[in-house]
Amino acid sequence: MATQIPSFSREEYQQRLTNVRAAMYERNIQTLIVHDPANIAWLTGYDGWSFYTPQAAIVSMSGEPVWYGRQMDANGARRTVWLQEENILWYPDYYVMNPPMNAMEYLANQFLRPYEWACGRIGVEMDSVYFTPAAWLALQENLPEAELVDATALVNWCRAVKSDTELRYMRIAARIVERMHAAALEMIEPGLPKNLLVAEIYRVAMEGHDGHFGDYPSIVPMLPSGPDASAPHLTWDNRPFCRDQGTFLELAGCHRRYHCVLSRTIYLGRPTDNFLRAEEALNAGLAAGVAAAQPGNRCADIADALNATLAEYGFDREGARCGYPIGMSYPPDWGERSMSLRNTDYTLLQPGMTFHFMPGLWLEDWGMETTESIVITDHGGETLCNYPRQLLVKK
Amino acid sequence: MATQIPSFSREEYQQRLTNVRAAMYERNIQTLIVHDPANIAWLTGYDGWSFYTPQAAIVSMSGEPVWYGRQMDANGARRTVWLQEENILWYPDYYVMNPPMNAMEYLANQFLRPYEWACGRIGVEMDSVYFTPAAWLALQENLPEAELVDATALVNWCRAVKSDTELRYMRIAARIVERMHAAALEMIEPGLPKNLLVAEIYRVAMEGHDGHFGDYPSIVPMLPSGPDASAPHLTWDNRPFCRDQGTFLELAGCHRRYHCVLSRTIYLGRPTDNFLRAEEALNAGLAAGVAAAQPGNRCADIADALNATLAEYGFDREGARCGYPIGMSYPPDWGERSMSLRNTDYTLLQPGMTFHFMPGLWLEDWGMETTESIVITDHGGETLCNYPRQLLVKK
Repeated sequence: MATQIPSFSREEYQQRLTNVRAAMYERNIQTLIVHDPANIAWLTGYDGWSFYTPQAAIVSMSGEPVWYGRQMDANGARRTVWLQEENILWYPDYYVMNPPMNAMEYLANQFLRPYEWACGRIGVEMDSVYFTPAAWLALQENLPEAELVDATALVNWCRAVKSDTELRYMRIAARIVERMHAAALEMIEPGLPKNLLVAEIYRVAMEGHDGHFGDYPSIVPMLPSGPDASAPHLTWDNRPFCRDQGTFLELAGCHRRYHCVLSRTIYLGRPTDNFLRAEEALNAGLAAGVAAAQPGNRCADIADALNATLAEYGFDREGARCGYPIGMSYPPDWGERSMSLRNTDYTLLQPGMTFHFMPGLWLEDWGMETTESIVITDHGGETLCNYPRQLLVKK
Repeated sequence: MATQIPSFSREEYQQRLTNVRAAMYERNIQTLIVHDPANIAWLTGYDGWSFYTPQAAIVSMSGEPVWYGRQMDANGARRTVWLQEENILWYPDYYVMNPPMNAMEYLANQFLRPYEWACGRIGVEMDSVYFTPAAWLALQENLPEAELVDATALVNWCRAVKSDTELRYMRIAARIVERMHAAALEMIEPGLPKNLLVAEIYRVAMEGHDGHFGDYPSIVPMLPSGPDASAPHLTWDNRPFCRDQGTFLELAGCHRRYHCVLSRTIYLGRPTDNFLRAEEALNAGLAAGVAAAQPGNRCADIADALNATLAEYGFDREGARCGYPIGMSYPPDWGERSMSLRNTDYTLLQPGMTFHFMPGLWLEDWGMETTESIVITDHGGETLCNYPRQLLVKK
């Protein structure tokens, strides 16, 4: 169906479907309704910024998945999904932000019932952004013969091990984010209004690399300075960069919705002892964590290796997780929302898993980030980027 | 509390609080828990890209609102909200993507109960992106003495009429989006890979206008060409622009989270009759709609005026709404998610309301958008932008 250049072969989509069905079978789920835009895209190929209105992909135990969305977005589905026309279903526009009408009521009565998907155990993503309590209630009320069960992150877990093509896109994203960091380092200087640096970072991000286009990252550039860097998620304004301040830049390159995230800290002037000590601690911690990123080890081993090393330098991240899986994503998050790099997560590491290993330090009145995106290989953890792992200093 | 330059005076925040409390009182709601990031920001001043993990603002019938979020984001709250330190509450990091733990359970037991907010009628946003069924169930289970009631869009409706300061930010956003369109028109040409035009649009968007910084718009630039323009929400890749094709550009300028949206269509070559007819129809429809955008008229009057005019030219938008309120917003949507410009919405228009009036035409194998952002004034509808309202043609 797709008229755009598809990102993956039909075989790859079929393989994904097979894996998802195996997970459904294991949990005795006959029909799966996913709302997470990355899950919808991964299953159907759909790509568009339409997730601010209800949309879903439906997977049953046979046939192709179904794409379900707003009438005007069915044209976008026709141009991007690998599915046959019959599997593109839509609701009329008067279901958009027009309470008490709910697009899930329409889905249930117009499609799930006639298609005999209205009974048995139906999996829904109970803790997924984009699936609201009103949507859940609408499904419940209109599917009295079905049992709705929680399938949060079922598909996300199937996405954990990346294919060769997915890794290829992530390596392109790695080249893009390296260029973004290099451009920022080149341009940053005391007196420069921060938004002008953001303008340059975006320009380079969209330019892409070597003919491969830059796609929009699922999170905007984050680059707080000085005391603002005590907070990890502030965005920018036009206050100028100052001498004798540190700025961490948490940036992602993106290609065909696949991300590679990298953070570095730039100090304008002569770094204080705090920053130098943090540089040493983070570099040692990253090295220890990457060394622990072996197939057969667990997520917790990476976190433990990092935390033990940071403790030697007197840093304590107060239980904050130190990373998460990355790959395909849509706003608001470039994390995959399945496992986490934390000391209580015993997920086995497997070749092809990809993480943003991110030991940020956010302290009382300053902060620093040095991070790496990594892929687990047969031979251990490998960083996706090749960018100087140090506190970058500009006088 | 805020250490950044606040966007609004304390008096303006107090006025908002008073208006929200009046709406709560009317619906017999004693405590309100809002998850919509724009509602949180509008009430507390909080600004950060942290809405991918649970966060909320809580309003009771007295005192300042409460900001509630992840531990590491409390520092961001301290730097942006107008609230006292005691009203910044946080949950530990092991509540992040770590089922079955849920940050709303922690909120209920650690804070709502001790603060005596655990009884009576508690309003929650049942159909708000960012409030999940799991979060709702966690509140329900842990607040057995309370009745959770639907307060979707209660705050959004309070945001409908803009203050002078809000309008000032939107007029800055208007200048920014004018510059974005002018830059795109200047650069676009056959053979140019689309992502390079996106790079330039972002650069100009972030640069801002006249010393006012560009903030990130809540939706990315949309600029589909040729047959892709039959779908309103496709994003870009690196296929080049082609001669004899139309491209619509739906762009927003943004300043301090306030948006102004504007769409124009650019044709490379000699426009076909389809485009010329659509240009005439859209311009007449926009003029008719703006003329109907009078205080005392209703949302439906704008839609009716547009639709009747388009019908004269043989165009039928098949019931799609033709606009929505705009102002402050966060991804995934720059609409305010309260009223809609559609023939069944009888909301009275009031001075200070702001809309993106957007009669897009998405047809079988082409599409066109000419839109305006408008403010209702005592003297009628006024466009926020001053940009040629025509099909832009480049040979």
